[in-house]
Amino acid sequence: MQLQPAGTGSMASAVAAALVSWGFLDYKTEKYVMTRNCWVGISQRLLQLGVVVYVIGWALLAKKGYQEWDMDPQISVITKLKGVSVTQVKELEKRLWDVADFVRPSQGENVFFLVTNFLVTPAQVQGRCPETQAAWEEAGALVFVACEAESQRRDTIRAVGDESLSCLPQHPSVPLANCWADEDCPEGEMGTYSHGIKTGQCVAFNGTHRTCEIWSWCPVESSAVPRKPLLAQAKNFTLFIKNTVTFNKFNFSRTNALDTWDNTYFKYCLYDSLSSPYCPVFRIGDLVAMTGGDFEDLALLGGAVGINIHWDCNLDTKGSDCSPQYSFQLQERGYNFRTANYWWAASGVESRSLLKLYGIRFDILVTGQAGKFALIPTAITVGTGAAWLGMVTFLCDLLLLYVDREAGFYWRTKYEEARAPKATTNSA
Amino acid sequence: MQLQPAGTGSMASAVAAALVSWGFLDYKTEKYVMTRNCWVGISQRLLQLGVVVYVIGWALLAKKGYQEWDMDPQISVITKLKGVSVTQVKELEKRLWDVADFVRPSQGENVFFLVTNFLVTPAQVQGRCPETQAAWEEAGALVFVACEAESQRRDTIRAVGDESLSCLPQHPSVPLANCWADEDCPEGEMGTYSHGIKTGQCVAFNGTHRTCEIWSWCPVESSAVPRKPLLAQAKNFTLFIKNTVTFNKFNFSRTNALDTWDNTYFKYCLYDSLSSPYCPVFRIGDLVAMTGGDFEDLALLGGAVGINIHWDCNLDTKGSDCSPQYSFQLQERGYNFRTANYWWAASGVESRSLLKLYGIRFDILVTGQAGKFALIPTAITVGTGAAWLGMVTFLCDLLLLYVDREAGFYWRTKYEEARAPKATTNSA
Amino acid sequence: MQLQPAGTGSMASAVAAALVSWGFLDYKTEKYVMTRNCWVGISQRLLQLGVVVYVIGWALLAKKGYQEWDMDPQISVITKLKGVSVTQVKELEKRLWDVADFVRPSQGENVFFLVTNFLVTPAQVQGRCPETQAAWEEAGALVFVACEAESQRRDTIRAVGDESLSCLPQHPSVPLANCWADEDCPEGEMGTYSHGIKTGQCVAFNGTHRTCEIWSWCPVESSAVPRKPLLAQAKNFTLFIKNTVTFNKFNFSRTNALDTWDNTYFKYCLYDSLSSPYCPVFRIGDLVAMTGGDFEDLALLGGAVGINIHWDCNLDTKGSDCSPQYSFQLQERGYNFRTANYWWAASGVESRSLLKLYGIRFDILVTGQAGKFALIPTAITVGTGAAWLGMVTFLCDLLLLYVDREAGFYWRTKYEEARAPKATTNSA
Repeated sequence: MQLQPAGTGSMASAVAAALVSWGFLDYKTEKYVMTRNCWVGISQRLLQLGVVVYVIGWALLAKKGYQEWDMDPQISVITKLKGVSVTQVKELEKRLWDVADFVRPSQGENVFFLVTNFLVTPAQVQGRCPETQAAWEEAGALVFVACEAESQRRDTIRAVGDESLSCLPQHPSVPLANCWADEDCPEGEMGTYSHGIKTGQCVAFNGTHRTCEIWSWCPVESSAVPRKPLLAQAKNFTLFIKNTVTFNKFNFSRTNALDTWDNTYFKYCLYDSLSSPYCPVFRIGDLVAMTGGDFEDLALLGGAVGINIHWDCNLDTKGSDCSPQYSFQLQERGYNFRTANYWWAASGVESRSLLKLYGIRFDILVTGQAGKFALIPTAITVGTGAAWLGMVTFLCDLLLLYVDREAGFYWRTKYEEARAPKATTNSA
Repeated sequence: MQLQPAGTGSMASAVAAALVSWGFLDYKTEKYVMTRNCWVGISQRLLQLGVVVYVIGWALLAKKGYQEWDMDPQISVITKLKGVSVTQVKELEKRLWDVADFVRPSQGENVFFLVTNFLVTPAQVQGRCPETQAAWEEAGALVFVACEAESQRRDTIRAVGDESLSCLPQHPSVPLANCWADEDCPEGEMGTYSHGIKTGQCVAFNGTHRTCEIWSWCPVESSAVPRKPLLAQAKNFTLFIKNTVTFNKFNFSRTNALDTWDNTYFKYCLYDSLSSPYCPVFRIGDLVAMTGGDFEDLALLGGAVGINIHWDCNLDTKGSDCSPQYSFQLQERGYNFRTANYWWAASGVESRSLLKLYGIRFDILVTGQAGKFALIPTAITVGTGAAWLGMVTFLCDLLLLYVDREAGFYWRTKYEEARAPKATTNSA
Repeated sequence: MQLQPAGTGSMASAVAAALVSWGFLDYKTEKYVMTRNCWVGISQRLLQLGVVVYVIGWALLAKKGYQEWDMDPQISVITKLKGVSVTQVKELEKRLWDVADFVRPSQGENVFFLVTNFLVTPAQVQGRCPETQAAWEEAGALVFVACEAESQRRDTIRAVGDESLSCLPQHPSVPLANCWADEDCPEGEMGTYSHGIKTGQCVAFNGTHRTCEIWSWCPVESSAVPRKPLLAQAKNFTLFIKNTVTFNKFNFSRTNALDTWDNTYFKYCLYDSLSSPYCPVFRIGDLVAMTGGDFEDLALLGGAVGINIHWDCNLDTKGSDCSPQYSFQLQERGYNFRTANYWWAASGVESRSLLKLYGIRFDILVTGQAGKFALIPTAITVGTGAAWLGMVTFLCDLLLLYVDREAGFYWRTKYEEARAPKATTNSA
């Protein structure tokens, strides 16, 4: 046994000699049995090819298995709407709406509401007035209300089961808020869909009907929803979205607005997925069209629109491969809520104007992921591939040792028996 | 050496012959030494069993290691509260509260506030009035304020350290906003917990006390918080939550509301984890009870309630295994804020009514994950298992080569020495 | 062949005998060729060392490869601002601002706006009044408006292209809202940046200029933005942030406020990254300074500030290693929006006071991750390391079989040829 390192002389030779004598630097390599068995050989090569194609083609290249991901960026969204619109309604006369009127909340958050239609009940004060017939209708609660009178013991709302069906109204076309005598209006009763608390009186609602008197904000809101959207001009309003994503893991930040020296660019540009994908200014009408919805429909009864901004960033390509993908989605048809403005009238009475606002709720949803080369995912992807190559040999061994015609011979060749008490090893 | 593929004839035979002659299609398989050593054999089988159980039982089946995950869905939440309540307070007389009054903000976001108690200071105007004694009390700033007079040089608020203790008030029960002469009220002074800026005068607060006069919204808010929640009927209000999650990676979307043809279903149903888990309508009282809180307590001084909706979706089972799990959590006891309504009074003076609102803040937190079969995670899980099987052999080799009685023999059998300069290989 | 387990007797012996005779308990171990080739041996040891250092030092210890991660915590944020400020403007006279005035929305969400400067237009009513000259200026829309008159057919806003340049105004210093005759003011025209809809009249704006009359909220907002921030005292306001993160995967929750018995602690403490990192009370001035911005600048024209709270939790160390890291970031310079308060004046006319609010938008962004020991990531990390050790052997084999001087000899020793039809195996 000739020690090459020891021959090189002086310093490290002592350590090397020790390692060598200890057998530490011996190189041990698996002994292989080479069989000229083409069919198993072909199987092996094909399987190996499959593993290599999977590892390199699919896991590494297609799925970027060499990258580490940050799926959870910090997101900041600022929005701004622009436009004015004129409406003409009985209660309000001719009225101009500007941005302070039609956006709620006004401070530019990622979820906001654009008023497109409304029902105003100006100058309500607390007092007694007849319940409106429409209270029930709006709630779609015809059945429920009729039954409620019969079963006031129930203190929680329950699904309409079989036993409730017995209290269905005889003539559903007759407004159920109607009454004929004070007894029909138990004092203090208050339904979930009612506008107030019954005072116990039955009073004239209009020339033909009588309804229960209630304590409420009076007069009660009428149900005459406008037949066409009052702020149809909202179609031409523009929405500016400024969205910043920060991937903390990679210390990388990006904004959706084109980085330009021209500070008037954003005043004139309009988003178009082809011609100006970096202009984050959207015309409301276009935006609704991109969801597949009809603006007139949405404007009339409201709706919810999701604006999805997806960032799929590949940070290995000098940051240029990181632009936002917009998609638009009609989440809901029909959306409204009530809000009110309050003040003390000159007479010292608290007043409010109640607004039932129909409109489009915009919900800007931002998701993102960024990938960058990292050692660990690469090691896992390649290491897993290596393990699969080992499994290929295992599978081919099954062919060779159990399926092949000469399986018995191969078996004996591959497995060299070692009988402990005796000395030499010879394959059978 | 007999080439089977070459015997098959015409086209591919040339390529095959080349590959064969190059040895490319030889199948090489590791040569094994078979030892009839049962104890090591048993160890190996047990370890192999462990690896197989881990890979198949735990990693693949229990932990769904064959699935790729999307942990970061796009989330959209729309909420709607329903109900009316009556309150009776001195300043406001009998007053009915409807949804426009008690929900802030009113447009149905995922974080909103339900008013359950309040302190109203109607018709404040800018002017001079005596500071209320309670200004300090509320801030819990008894000590701080007393010392502030002594040490106005400090321009930032600091923790009360040892040196400050010398300025502790003699009689902490005496309201500290009190004054005896104008000198006690330095003009322009303004504490962080004060209601306004001192004018330099000491004026009568009531029959028995004098306090510093301030420039502020007058009259100053009094501290008489109602002893019982004014909107206790809020217990019976109902909250409708519509939540949509979209897993972009799998192009899969789901909403928490039962997909039903019956459009009145959501008007009558109430959530119950057992009987109606697909009804997203919650009674406020039930909801608070599920957090473990007491509604009366929460309604009196406010609180924050988290409604967690967790989606754990398995997309390999035809989408049926993807329903929201609700959980409820009391995040905070005691929650209030001040807000105001502004108007110009007839006299041309800006007025506001200040509301200190106590109530329940609902915070709807949605998280979700979806898993679907994918090649890469499966390959990693199985490949890792294969690598572990290799480690089993390594461990058993240690037993065989270093622990077994016949270790020396096995060592020599396993490691066949190859001395380069000489020709044949024989095991020692 | 001597069966040890069979010798131990009674019960399990039958099964054992079957397994043994079936060869199931034979231990098979790879046969190795041991070459005393130091250079390949050294290469192998170095590579093995590299793999071990990578697996243990980097993947396991540095990158905590033994941990499972939850990257998507449930987050809840509650904020509260404190402070008062005095302003002095013509329209409002001396005015005190308290928390109900300067925070929007007031209920303590994670995104809120602190008013630092404003432009008030009190008591607007719907009516006819001259357009302000500044309408155009503010919108930066000098060019656009001039061209608009020429090309009313365009119904969408378009970028100013070459063909539009022909309609540039001769004297850009002349206010473009000016008019000389009624013909300059087409009735019903309404620009995106206009305050209202033109009535068709040209009226006197002031002593020297005439502008188009519009139907709008009148009087129109003037453009005189205050030269210094009106609420400069906002610098001393304090912001309390309560942030709770919940990692559902590990059933672990943590809040950013020090868990203390002293309920006055949060009234006096102030955040400082060194001296009091667990006090979540921030002085606005300090907070802006930490973003690198200048408070006076930001207060004058507004801005957006991001407060990032990052939780990086290691749940294997008794939860003590889980504290929030704050960072502060100036997202945007210049931020304002318009909002209004509405009421019905005594005369029965709807009035509003329009506020153009400049201020600082705070956006509290919380991200977090928690790691805890888990079997699967550990198995993957170690298993991948094992697979890489196999690849080390493969690489060294390349050296041995193709690079080494004695490559031919080693090749023949490693690959023992097995010729199927014949009996014994001898290396060439």
